[in-house]
This record gives sequence, structure tokens and C-alpha cells, in this order.
Amino acid sequence: MRTTDLIIKKRNGYSLTKEEIEFLVHNFTQGNIPDYQMAAFCMAVYFRGMDMEETTNLTLAMVNSGETIDLTAIKGTIVDKHSTGGVADTTTLVLAPLVAAAGVPVAKMSGRGLGHTGGTIDKLESIPGFHTILSKEAFIEQVNKIGVAVVGQSGALVPADKKIYALRDVTGTVDSIPLIASSIMSKKIAAGAQAIVLDVKTGSGAFMKDTEEAFRLAETMVGIGTRAGRETVAIISDMNEPLGSAIGNALEVQEAIEVLQGKVSGPLRELSLGLGSYMILAAGKAKDFAEAKGILTGLLEERRALAKMKELIEAQHGNPEVLENLTLLPQARGKLIVKAWAEGYLAEIDAQALGLAAMVLGAGRETKDAAIDLAVGLKVHGRRGDYFKLDQPLLTLYYNEEKRMAEAMKYVREAFTFSPSKVEKNPLIYGVVTKKGRESYNGLL
Amino acid sequence: MRTTDLIIKKRNGYSLTKEEIEFLVHNFTQGNIPDYQMAAFCMAVYFRGMDMEETTNLTLAMVNSGETIDLTAIKGTIVDKHSTGGVADTTTLVLAPLVAAAGVPVAKMSGRGLGHTGGTIDKLESIPGFHTILSKEAFIEQVNKIGVAVVGQSGALVPADKKIYALRDVTGTVDSIPLIASSIMSKKIAAGAQAIVLDVKTGSGAFMKDTEEAFRLAETMVGIGTRAGRETVAIISDMNEPLGSAIGNALEVQEAIEVLQGKVSGPLRELSLGLGSYMILAAGKAKDFAEAKGILTGLLEERRALAKMKELIEAQHGNPEVLENLTLLPQARGKLIVKAWAEGYLAEIDAQALGLAAMVLGAGRETKDAAIDLAVGLKVHGRRGDYFKLDQPLLTLYYNEEKRMAEAMKYVREAFTFSPSKVEKNPLIYGVVTKKGRESYNGLL
Repeated sequence: MRTTDLIIKKRNGYSLTKEEIEFLVHNFTQGNIPDYQMAAFCMAVYFRGMDMEETTNLTLAMVNSGETIDLTAIKGTIVDKHSTGGVADTTTLVLAPLVAAAGVPVAKMSGRGLGHTGGTIDKLESIPGFHTILSKEAFIEQVNKIGVAVVGQSGALVPADKKIYALRDVTGTVDSIPLIASSIMSKKIAAGAQAIVLDVKTGSGAFMKDTEEAFRLAETMVGIGTRAGRETVAIISDMNEPLGSAIGNALEVQEAIEVLQGKVSGPLRELSLGLGSYMILAAGKAKDFAEAKGILTGLLEERRALAKMKELIEAQHGNPEVLENLTLLPQARGKLIVKAWAEGYLAEIDAQALGLAAMVLGAGRETKDAAIDLAVGLKVHGRRGDYFKLDQPLLTLYYNEEKRMAEAMKYVREAFTFSPSKVEKNPLIYGVVTKKGRESYNGLL
Repeated sequence: MRTTDLIIKKRNGYSLTKEEIEFLVHNFTQGNIPDYQMAAFCMAVYFRGMDMEETTNLTLAMVNSGETIDLTAIKGTIVDKHSTGGVADTTTLVLAPLVAAAGVPVAKMSGRGLGHTGGTIDKLESIPGFHTILSKEAFIEQVNKIGVAVVGQSGALVPADKKIYALRDVTGTVDSIPLIASSIMSKKIAAGAQAIVLDVKTGSGAFMKDTEEAFRLAETMVGIGTRAGRETVAIISDMNEPLGSAIGNALEVQEAIEVLQGKVSGPLRELSLGLGSYMILAAGKAKDFAEAKGILTGLLEERRALAKMKELIEAQHGNPEVLENLTLLPQARGKLIVKAWAEGYLAEIDAQALGLAAMVLGAGRETKDAAIDLAVGLKVHGRRGDYFKLDQPLLTLYYNEEKRMAEAMKYVREAFTFSPSKVEKNPLIYGVVTKKGRESYNGLL
């Protein structure tokens, strides 16, 4: 098999066989195929695409490029959740204790933030004392004991994805559905997921700006999961504005706790209930969506998810007193209330601009190894469609350095657009993709 | 300027500016842009193409990547000829003395053969004593003195092309018209051509299998030449079968000499007259094609091109006695006359298969640095459409090793197809492209 011939085969629009895809992935990971050939191949895939069989074979070849995690020692069905990346999106912190409280084991590996999107591991580390590194044995033992554990991702999983992604990033080949789908799904499968619930974001603050494209990505990932024997469901949710109101590590932990305490409702709670319902459905803990959502709503209202959060924090050496006293979370020194500089309906809240504002404040990383400030960030005091009077508080910045605050304000000014005429609210969920195809979301939003 | 952004711009179908193209070519040649980014860029160009302005800018940026040769010290217009590569195609050996005999200076830099196509420099080296390396000063002095010199290409011309071509070869991005056209034209312009006549081959033995594609390549090259201020004309000629009858270095020199001696007519002579006519037209030595062809035909018939060949051989230290005694050329030890194994009309003579047969005999290089055997090769005793009786001599193999001869025979058997019904002859020339567009060839074939 010659690499050049395989590039030309894809370039000319033919499908590659399982063996051909395995040859490419294996030899690229091993360093036998140089970067320039893989770069040309990825660009050919950008233009020609891959069919479901090729995409599944690519995913599985990537899974096999490194270590995989065997979670069969955990009792019950391991259902993993993945979001394609949003702003003020801290569903994992709500879902992990909520789904565990419903009796579905949550063995979650999460990542750190990069750019304008946050990461669960960073957020959890704002809880004083919280450990995010556990041995594999301790991880499994904790899930079997209290039903939930959240740890950082192992570096040995899917080395092919790390290498291919780094190359795609500098060769203009990121925006390819089969390459995005195989990257996400290979990591979920390698991490031991037996069922997968996907949150595919669409809108100005999402990677997929276009809703139709988001559905296609969802269909591809559900197709991979189904072919790989993992029940997979995707929710297509809105990222034209931030999901929750808080952006920043400790601030997002606080908002998640407030959801668990029943003090905060709105889109973050709603989407968590939707994703969680599909998770417990996939684990066989409910007969239909309505029942699943009823179970989870009850667990929230009875504060049983909050109690599970306390167990999780204690098990991973964090200080559970934060649940009663949120000021134990890292606090920024400065606070600036920004008032509406115009009167009217909020027409646009640019999630990406606000994510960048929080990054500039220190909440996010510009580069992979940059340090972050867990205390800083911002809270938005309204949503698209809300009416604001002049000088009504619009958002609050939490900052530690005046200079960064001033820089963040540039993004804040660009993030909001006011309109004199009434503006429709965004739908939160555009639909669902299951192995049967596209379905409307029946979560009674 | 970020390389990734330029890749994405091309990938999305936009045209790059002159500055952007210069940035890419300069920094790639200097090693500042890695191979993997240029590979992705070339694949994006494969799919999106380049407009005439981009292609011309690419060509000129490549010219400027290294040394250029200034031939203004030569009196008269320097008209260069280039063939996209054929089998049994030794027009340069006919044209160089012929055009020089017409008073147009021929300052020719030629290459060596690779794969199934031969190279003029290899062929000339089969003339005992012939030198193909001259200093720049001696080269110009010889052209001014006798009107013709043929030397090997300088390695310092167009380093960008060497680097880009090597990369395209292993990344499935060879078959892109703007990349092929800029590669060819950059070398001609850097070598000092003031006008350029192109022989674009089409057919099963050519790089461009499809005639329409060959016309498009010709149009692109003529467009580049015109925009770069070089009068450029292209002839689209047939390569569905070998051009001449001889394949192999000394054998092709012999055939060229026989054309100059008036002993051989046919397609090699005809195409040489056609290309030569456009060359002397471009140099202003004739008022129209008919006059140009008349001049050259006269020079052939009066043996004045043969006399010029003698001067060329003498000037470059070769033994001019080969012109009277062809057995002074390298002679193979073995000779095998292959007889027609079927009766009928010759329906196919696969030029590429015969080129490979000659390569296997030792006449060509499989890799760039392989040694070659100047004596070996083959002669075909008929053309498409000719009627062969069973056991009528079909071709002769000239070989030095029995083992290689046996291997070459495998290609020979595949190269010929006989048909019981009458077969049309191939046209030799499909048309001409000038700066005014496509024209029919009026060379009275």
C-alpha cells in the first residue's frame, strides 16, 4: 500500500477500505507517514468527505492507536456526555451528580479549557482541595462506591487524534465533519463509554455556526456510535448566546451549585435536564423521555443531586462547605457593574466575544500551557429578547487586574446589540438526532 | 500574514493576491513554511484551481526564488521549446540545428530522462565525446558563434519548483493545471527564454490523457507567457502512440540524424517542422506559418540543418564522424526481431508500455540517480492503422542483457493490439493555442 495512492484515491472521490484507513492512521501515529502526506489527505477529505463506513473505520482506527480504558468493572451502563464546546456551559457540573443520583454510574473524564471555551477540570479545581487526578483503580472504586467520579483526561488515549488535530489546526482542515466527528467519538469510545449523549452546539458562539451543519455533524457522530455498538443520541442546542449567565471557573461552579440548590432555573437547568434524561434513558433507568425527565426533576427538587455533589466533592478531597458558603470559592478583588448603554430589546449577545472577554480577564488560556485565574469572569444579567432600560445593570465583571478589565471591556462593548423593536427569544434546543434520524425535542420547553 | 489563513482562503475558493503568493513561495523555499502546510495548499489548489493572474504570479514568484539566466548578450530572439514529455520524441535533436540553420539563436538547456520518457542530455551523451556542461560564458559565446548550444540544466534555477514538485509527487497533487503550468513556465522564463513554443502531448502515453485537458494546460501556459511578456504558442500533439519509431538514447540520436539526412520522414519530421515554424515565426524570421515551414523544409532538403548539427557536435567536442557512420554510436550486443503474433490492423501502440520496455532494457531511469545504458532500446516497424501479416517484423529490441530483454518483452506484448477491421490513423496535431485562443493547425498535414 502506498500512501500517495491512498491520497489520490480519496482525492478522486473514492471510499477507502478499512485496511487502507488503518494503514494511514497506524503509520501516521507511528511516524512512518510524514505530516505532509497526512496534511494532503486531510485536505482531500475536506473536499471529498467520507461515508459513514469510512468515518466509523477512521474513528475505530484512532481508538486503536493508543490505550483504551476498560470500565466493565463498574456496575451499570457507563453513559458519557460530550459537548462540542460552548460559553457559560457548565452542564457537566449539574449532570454528573444529577445522573449519579438517578443510579446511573458517572465515570467522567474531562478536559481543560482552551481559548474562549471553559473546561470542567479547571472549574472543579476552583473548589478548595478538589483533586482531579485519580489512579484508574481509585477512579473505578469511587464510581462503584458513590456512583460518580470526575477526573482529567489521560494523555495516553487516542494519540492519533492528538497528532492529526495538531496538523489540521495549521493546515486549514479543521472544518471537516468526518474529521471532527471521528476526533470526538474516538475519545469517547477510548474512554470506555458504553452509551454517549452529545450536545452539539449551533450558532454564532459555536464551532458550527449553521444549524443544518450541526445536524449533519450530529448525524455523523450518532452513525459512528451506532456502528461501533454504542447507543448514541445528540441534542442540537443553541449557542447564539451564552447558555448560563456566568462565565469563568469559580463563577460557573457557583451557578451549577445554585441550579442544584434550586435557586437558578433557565436554560442551563433545562439543557441539563434534557441531556440527563437521554443519559438515564440510554442506561435503561426510564421507559421514555417524559419519565426520565420527571425522575431528574424530582431529584433536583428534593436536593438529592445536591447531596450527591457533596459526596463527589468529599470523595475527591474538596471542601464540601462551599455548598453552604459560596464565598469559599476563589473571589476576585474587583467587581464592575456594567450598565446598559442604550435602551431597548437585547438583539444579540455574542457568546464568543463574552468568552474572549472572560479569557482576557484571565479565566481562559490563550495557549495550552498558560496559567489561569480561577476567580475572574463575568455574569450576564439578561438574555436575548429581554428589555433593558438605560443604565440598568447589564453584566458584572469580576477582575483582579485593572488593565485586563479595561481590555475585557472592549469585547463586552462589541458583545451586545440593542434593538428598539421586540426581539424573539432563541429556541434552546433545535432538535434531537437518534439512530432513527432527526426528531423534534419533546422536553416541553 | 498567516500561512493557515492563506490555505483557508484558497480552500474556500478565493483568489490570492500577488503578495500572498509571493509570501508562500518565498517562505516555503526559505524553509519558513513547513512541507505540511504547502502540501495542504497544493491540495486546495488541486480542488479550487487558480485564475490566470494567480497562476502568473505563482510562476513569477517561482522564477524569483533562485538564479535567472540573462541571455541578452546573445544576438536575436531566444526562442525556447518545451515538450510536456513523450515517448520516441526527439524533436529537440532535429529542431536545434534546424532552427539555428534558419538564423534563430538556439540557447537550449535540457534535462535528463526519468521513468518512461527520455531526456535530450542523455541522448546527446551517446555521441562519443559530446560535452553537455559549459560555463555560462562559453555557452553564450558558442551561440553567438555558431547559432546553437545545448547544455544540461543549471541546478540553481527555480529552487521553489524543485521543492514544490518533490512535495507534489508524494502528496497526490501533481495533476493540477495551474501547478503544472507554473512549474514548466517558471523554468523556461528563468532560463532566459524570450519566446516559447510548447509541445503539449495528449493521449494514452502522455501526462494529459484527455485532449480537452491538454488544451486547457496549453491555454494556461500561453496565458502565463503572454502576461509575463513572452510570446508563447502551443501545439497540442498526439501521444497515443510513440512519435518516432526509435526509443532509447543512441537509437533516437540515429533517428534524428536520419531525419536531418532526409532519409526518414513521418511524424517526427512533421512535428519538428511544425514546432520549428512557430519558433522562427516568434523570432520574426518569417511573415506567416506557410513561409516559415517553407524555409525549414528547404533547410532540411538542402542538408543545411545536417551541416549545423555537425557544427554543434564539433563545438561541444563530440565526434562528427557519427553523422557519416552511425555505427560509431553505442551499439547493443543483442538484437531481437519481434514478429507480429497476430494478423490485422494495428489498433493500439501503447507509448507508455513501450517507454517502460525501453526503461527496463536500461535506456531509462527508474530513480533520479540511476545509471542508464545508452545503447539499448527498441524500434517499432509500424504505426496505428498499418496492416500486419502474421510473423511480419513488428519491432526490434536492442539489448545488452538477456534477462532485461525477457522482462521488456512483457511490456511489449501488452503494448500492441491488432484488429481485424480497418483502424483510423491518429491525427498528429489536434490544434494550436496562441494568445488569441485555440486555432486549427494549418501545417498541411
